[in-house]
Amino acid sequence: MDQQVTNRGSELVFLPLGGAGEIGMNFNCYGYGPPEERAWIVVDCGVLFGRETSTPGVDLIMPDTRFLEEVRSDVLGIVLTHGHEDHIGAVAHLWPKLRCPVFATPFTVKLVQHKLEEAGLEQRVRITPVPLGGRIKLGPFSIEFVSITHSIPEPNCLAIRTPAGTVVHTGDWKIDPDPLLGRVTDDSRLRHLGEEGVLAMVCDSTNALVNGESGSESEVKRALVRLIGSLKGKVAVTAFASNVARLESIADAARSAHREVVLVGRAMRHMVSCARDTGYLRNFPAVVDEEDAAQIPADHVLYLCTGSQGESRAALARIAAGEHPNVSLGEGDTVIFSSRIIPGNDLEIFALQNRLAAKGVTVLTERDHFVHVSGHPARDELAAMYSWIKPKISIPVHGELRHLTEHARFARELQVPRAIVATNGQMIRLSPGEPQIVDETPFGRLHLDGRVLVHEEDGHARGRRSLSFAGFAAITLVLNRKRRLAAEPVFYMEGIPPAVEEAMRDAVFGVLGEKIRDELDEDVRIAARRAANEIWGKKPVVRVKLVEV
Amino acid sequence: MDQQVTNRGSELVFLPLGGAGEIGMNFNCYGYGPPEERAWIVVDCGVLFGRETSTPGVDLIMPDTRFLEEVRSDVLGIVLTHGHEDHIGAVAHLWPKLRCPVFATPFTVKLVQHKLEEAGLEQRVRITPVPLGGRIKLGPFSIEFVSITHSIPEPNCLAIRTPAGTVVHTGDWKIDPDPLLGRVTDDSRLRHLGEEGVLAMVCDSTNALVNGESGSESEVKRALVRLIGSLKGKVAVTAFASNVARLESIADAARSAHREVVLVGRAMRHMVSCARDTGYLRNFPAVVDEEDAAQIPADHVLYLCTGSQGESRAALARIAAGEHPNVSLGEGDTVIFSSRIIPGNDLEIFALQNRLAAKGVTVLTERDHFVHVSGHPARDELAAMYSWIKPKISIPVHGELRHLTEHARFARELQVPRAIVATNGQMIRLSPGEPQIVDETPFGRLHLDGRVLVHEEDGHARGRRSLSFAGFAAITLVLNRKRRLAAEPVFYMEGIPPAVEEAMRDAVFGVLGEKIRDELDEDVRIAARRAANEIWGKKPVVRVKLVEV
Repeated sequence: MDQQVTNRGSELVFLPLGGAGEIGMNFNCYGYGPPEERAWIVVDCGVLFGRETSTPGVDLIMPDTRFLEEVRSDVLGIVLTHGHEDHIGAVAHLWPKLRCPVFATPFTVKLVQHKLEEAGLEQRVRITPVPLGGRIKLGPFSIEFVSITHSIPEPNCLAIRTPAGTVVHTGDWKIDPDPLLGRVTDDSRLRHLGEEGVLAMVCDSTNALVNGESGSESEVKRALVRLIGSLKGKVAVTAFASNVARLESIADAARSAHREVVLVGRAMRHMVSCARDTGYLRNFPAVVDEEDAAQIPADHVLYLCTGSQGESRAALARIAAGEHPNVSLGEGDTVIFSSRIIPGNDLEIFALQNRLAAKGVTVLTERDHFVHVSGHPARDELAAMYSWIKPKISIPVHGELRHLTEHARFARELQVPRAIVATNGQMIRLSPGEPQIVDETPFGRLHLDGRVLVHEEDGHARGRRSLSFAGFAAITLVLNRKRRLAAEPVFYMEGIPPAVEEAMRDAVFGVLGEKIRDELDEDVRIAARRAANEIWGKKPVVRVKLVEV
Repeated sequence: MDQQVTNRGSELVFLPLGGAGEIGMNFNCYGYGPPEERAWIVVDCGVLFGRETSTPGVDLIMPDTRFLEEVRSDVLGIVLTHGHEDHIGAVAHLWPKLRCPVFATPFTVKLVQHKLEEAGLEQRVRITPVPLGGRIKLGPFSIEFVSITHSIPEPNCLAIRTPAGTVVHTGDWKIDPDPLLGRVTDDSRLRHLGEEGVLAMVCDSTNALVNGESGSESEVKRALVRLIGSLKGKVAVTAFASNVARLESIADAARSAHREVVLVGRAMRHMVSCARDTGYLRNFPAVVDEEDAAQIPADHVLYLCTGSQGESRAALARIAAGEHPNVSLGEGDTVIFSSRIIPGNDLEIFALQNRLAAKGVTVLTERDHFVHVSGHPARDELAAMYSWIKPKISIPVHGELRHLTEHARFARELQVPRAIVATNGQMIRLSPGEPQIVDETPFGRLHLDGRVLVHEEDGHARGRRSLSFAGFAAITLVLNRKRRLAAEPVFYMEGIPPAVEEAMRDAVFGVLGEKIRDELDEDVRIAARRAANEIWGKKPVVRVKLVEV
């Protein structure tokens, strides 16, 4: 099929299965063809991190792909825009369900391959490196990778050409005139696409509520050089390991302050190694091993650490807890958080900073020093992008609803004829005719719960969450054949205060002292919950089982 | 005892039991006398709100007062600086343990009395209103209430005079030159105290990391008048109900935009009523009842709502969910969050804003409009206070460690001779001699878990939290006298995926198929946990009980 073939009956549709209505778990599907025999491509395949509040015990959340699995033979490929976890983190988990080729630029390939190796899938998955600025063709989709800037090497905007028109899928981006590492935004190519004519732009909404511009990595570098140059004692800097340009800025700042760089934390070493393997960080200084770092005088060392989000197992948390084997910080030392607070992580991060403060360490953050810029476009950058691409349709993605709706409102202000807010599972027909939501696919989420992949709707995390609110009680009643108690009731009570436990036991014995009915188990359950509620104001989950001997 | 008596052997000590090392749960003790027979006063008696992550199922957290209970007859009174929950919320819960008189200015008295009525304690607690600028004498403590500004009516700074010198306990404060309601900061009185000579200042640290000034309520008012005047459709504003000056500003903005004010939410109506009863809000407009609000045209109504922190049972959450009986918002309407995000609440607040965005409601916040100022002193205000009071000792409180340590550092920069960071339970001797930490008292927390007050260390919340991570399994084994199974094992499995359940059952049957040892219950428990861990990577809590029939 190519552009000469008539597209009578064919439709171009966009279907987000993740990332539209939330930040994270990006998973975007494009379909082309008649409804019954569409060819599909998937753009990005990311995860969301589980949260103790909403999904206790769940590490990763990813889209439920059952819709695509049903048309698996028509899924032509997974195309990755860049290497952040919320864009690539689900590949190793979902690929076995889709089994299609994967395409990405070399740095992203490197990161994905490592994940596939960990999952033992490296022999099975065909992953094709695409050069920067390269093109691939997948059935009716011709996909051009256009270099852009973000907060990781090799971010790409995709120009997806189809017989029904071109869609520009921006991926995550900003306009950084001096990104320090890799290419600048290829704005001439983007303008050219706009001149060619673009049907729709599917665009990053993360900072649609932020006025102005995101700022350049080069400005952060200058500030870091000044700041680190002014410090005495040991200096530790924590940053997102995937922001390789930032790592280089920090290393340069260290060098100009006559400090040696020590990489602390597995992700930090891994990311530097991946960057070097793909041709980046050629001037990165030789790093000192953690084990040897203790030998360096305090004024001549800089630790580059994982753990900017307060993650309990990351390097900085272990240092703050005094549990790191090779790095210790104390009075007179400084930790710089060259990062932002990801929503939901504030209390963990503050707890980490408090532990550092308790040791006498000075903590500097983006609140008090210019040590971070966002990787996503603020409104002036969005305006520039719309002026280049001039799409007929704007589809905001990569954001919560408040970001998507504001992005759509802004796009309309910028004279984009149509802006459509769709959330995960809503299928938008882009062509032919007026763009509109034409279908709702079954949308759901998968939880990586421990090592087991389960459906969110099966409710294991939700069930555990309710245990955490009011605890759990189980009661086993052993009856003989005459339905009389053959032993003392067995009680299990978890997370229930003693006074409440006692009231529940009394209530159970009360029921057992009466005439035993057929519904004994239910009678006991209700009595126990009612007793708890009376004294406690909360009802634990209660299970009752009868055993006959 | 009075100032003429020699203070040989007498010491003045400060002991924070809450609020030092955390924001919330303020509970400060001052002791004077020889160590064995000190007289004590308590300044503030507040709560911290429980969190689903750290304390699931717990509504309120308050200090464990066992130290004071042991010297109860020497506790002369509880003195409240102002009426915020983190300063008064524990009175009704802890008073029965301390049974001493309570002192506060009239507005605070009003709020506390309401809480005591709810607890059925109004007849038992002697609560004495102190006029603004008034003084009370409690044993060796002579306490002067000095008016200050904050974000609630009648905030007070306490000048606590003792034979060993004066301590200025600031309470929560800012310097608002035009607070709109109540008195301005009595800086002439504060300067006078400084001239008299102040031994120590125990001071608010909340915004010790923030440069500049906090800003004035009058500036927010001007911005709100402009903003609300520019809006079409229904307008809802959410704010902290206790910020009565803000409520008045919003009402004034409504009036000048020809909008009628509807109070939505119990706390909002309660706070307006308490303020009126104590002489505030004399010009507050007549409010329309919720039930009648539906009759007012959209452009002529303003809802003043509870729920700025995303609380699920508050008015705004119910409106956003479309579940409010009398108020509905939609396309073309606006909600203004005239508030800040309290750390830890961001995801709840964003979820609420997303639900509003989904209805087409425009959401405006302090991020994009000047609709909020903090009630706590930024660094320029701290500097002014230190220049007035000139204490010999600075003791930062009301903050996490990162705030306290930075506040102490800043105080030293301001030439305060000594700044001491102590956390909850650490007793500081202020006089005689060099100030220092002289004791660690048993420090703990109480949880209001449902309606039951329990000790944190008893671990009910912690136990429930571990259930939420990996679920719970209970197994009952019924044995006959020969220690053979008399019935099928009984399993209870909560929050455990089916594949893991199955592996656990198999492992249990494996143990039961072998020779039954004396330690059968422990063998079964270990086998079940091990099986779970192998397949799941997590170990649920497992309890096994044997029953003999």
